[in-house]
Amino acid sequence: MPVRIALDAMGGDQGPDVLVAGAVQAVNARNDLEVTLIGDEERLRTALRAHSAANQDRLRIVHASQVVDMDESPFEALRRKKDSSVAVAFRLQKQGEVEASVSAGNSGATMAAAIGALGRLKKISRPGIAGIFPTLKGPVVMMDVGANVDCRPLHLFQFGIMAAAFSQVIFASQRPRIGLLSIGEEGGKGNVLVKKSHELFSKSNLNYIGNVEGRDTFQGDVDVIVCDGFVGNVCLKLSEGLAEAVLSMLREEILKDFKAKLGYVLAKDAFGRFRKRVDYAEYGGAPLLGLNGTGIVCHGRSNATAIKNAINVAAELVSANINEHIQRLLDDVDSVLAAAASGEDA
Amino acid sequence: MPVRIALDAMGGDQGPDVLVAGAVQAVNARNDLEVTLIGDEERLRTALRAHSAANQDRLRIVHASQVVDMDESPFEALRRKKDSSVAVAFRLQKQGEVEASVSAGNSGATMAAAIGALGRLKKISRPGIAGIFPTLKGPVVMMDVGANVDCRPLHLFQFGIMAAAFSQVIFASQRPRIGLLSIGEEGGKGNVLVKKSHELFSKSNLNYIGNVEGRDTFQGDVDVIVCDGFVGNVCLKLSEGLAEAVLSMLREEILKDFKAKLGYVLAKDAFGRFRKRVDYAEYGGAPLLGLNGTGIVCHGRSNATAIKNAINVAAELVSANINEHIQRLLDDVDSVLAAAASGEDA
Repeated sequence: MPVRIALDAMGGDQGPDVLVAGAVQAVNARNDLEVTLIGDEERLRTALRAHSAANQDRLRIVHASQVVDMDESPFEALRRKKDSSVAVAFRLQKQGEVEASVSAGNSGATMAAAIGALGRLKKISRPGIAGIFPTLKGPVVMMDVGANVDCRPLHLFQFGIMAAAFSQVIFASQRPRIGLLSIGEEGGKGNVLVKKSHELFSKSNLNYIGNVEGRDTFQGDVDVIVCDGFVGNVCLKLSEGLAEAVLSMLREEILKDFKAKLGYVLAKDAFGRFRKRVDYAEYGGAPLLGLNGTGIVCHGRSNATAIKNAINVAAELVSANINEHIQRLLDDVDSVLAAAASGEDA
Repeated sequence: MPVRIALDAMGGDQGPDVLVAGAVQAVNARNDLEVTLIGDEERLRTALRAHSAANQDRLRIVHASQVVDMDESPFEALRRKKDSSVAVAFRLQKQGEVEASVSAGNSGATMAAAIGALGRLKKISRPGIAGIFPTLKGPVVMMDVGANVDCRPLHLFQFGIMAAAFSQVIFASQRPRIGLLSIGEEGGKGNVLVKKSHELFSKSNLNYIGNVEGRDTFQGDVDVIVCDGFVGNVCLKLSEGLAEAVLSMLREEILKDFKAKLGYVLAKDAFGRFRKRVDYAEYGGAPLLGLNGTGIVCHGRSNATAIKNAINVAAELVSANINEHIQRLLDDVDSVLAAAASGEDA
């Protein structure tokens, strides 16, 4: 059985050509994949014509007449645009025509469309977005990175479980080390939310290593970092901004003297390898976890490689049955969940 | 009149020799400065012997028999260690023997000792720590970066005012642009705390530019970034960790091939200039704002240059009368403060 993925072929900053190119790369790379491109049929047909006909039998187009813009309010946009590409994608998924959906469009709208169509996974209070950060060792998964800005301890606890399941499935961590993002390593340090979440994690049988600090994020000594969606989103964007600023400043300094410019030419391959190593495109996108189904949001600026990789991750999550993993981990902590849900603060 | 600064000469990871060296550099660089070194008298006398006697008449030693360790609980440590170097520093300041204190030790204990001895500035609910970040243009001040982990809107509003006064005094920003750290640029985006803080800033006559995102931090298009101490501390440590990780990864890639290694040798000066540009030591330390007095905390790893610069910033803050600036800005927003204080959420 092939894995069938829907791609919102209109969302994002780059336009359909890049998204379609990513889908073409994806089906060329994997034989067991079918991709449904969703968007303006004529526009997508034109985009497809730029590619060889090989494997195009595993690409199909489903028309959608509308697009949710990047800066639209998610809920209002979905209410007004019933035929938007992202809404159609998750509707197809609900109908069982595809097993997962990928979008590089408005991530709030993608999450809202996904929850609306698929619903939440059993025992999950709030689905969230898992972000993937490159580190000195391997990638680390941070959750939530933007879906839930005001959280309770139970939510953070569930983020940890979902991100751990993701880390197991995609990065083959045997027993993912889970850290709670805080401002000191001792369990007593942090804000009220973090202190109470620490108690939940400590009671569980998860591989919880305690608080981690911002500077630990990039060391690679933890597989999963748990935080609320406000803090996670700030971290995600701060990291992006800082990495760009570091390279800009370095470039400015290099351009100041001739010797350094020559040196840069010699070291260019190394810079290229470095860029590849930190490139978000390598990881493809950020999975929406906690849905009764599978969804991935990609960076609005995603190039074709990022889209290809995101489709591939979506297929992996479907094949590995990520949601069964999550459910199993949840079953293991039933007593903690029950205690947390009954507590007034959780 | 010389400016008199107390230096906690025992705090930090580097030991008294480095701290004393910083103090020596400071008095050598400025004629109008007197520094009181606080700590084990014999130890400090030994450290001073390594330096030329010139200008040593502007250095004096005040003995303190105890030290607060980096990982001690601030309040407990201060209760037990009445004669710790940091406590003695702020006690001297309270007695009017110095005008400001600088410590590279336990920042929580420094803040607690400062509040205990000096008290808060009129109309300020919570003093905080202002962090200074290098950006593509000039430095940006982020507040709070760790003193207050659970905040109300009124606190964030006051952080903005204090950081703006600091930016005026130290970075000569005429009318500092104040941004509120959030996860979207529209005023409606963010968590509950940020949304309510946005309303306060919008009502004021401050140069409030609205929400800024993590990625804006390093662009240099804003002078002050306001956030709670949890988020700010995560940002501070994440930035430190990421900058180090970026350089480590780049070095790893450069060491992989000979040509790149040669290139690196040629570009070494540029790398050095870059390091200097992002070096926290250039800014010296993080001011404690909102005190009825002046204090600075330095990074535990501070080298002598960082200490020298921190002493210098402390002297500038005293000369410029930072607290009068803050008070003036507070007076200008009296009606907003009053409305916020009477509101149930503020």
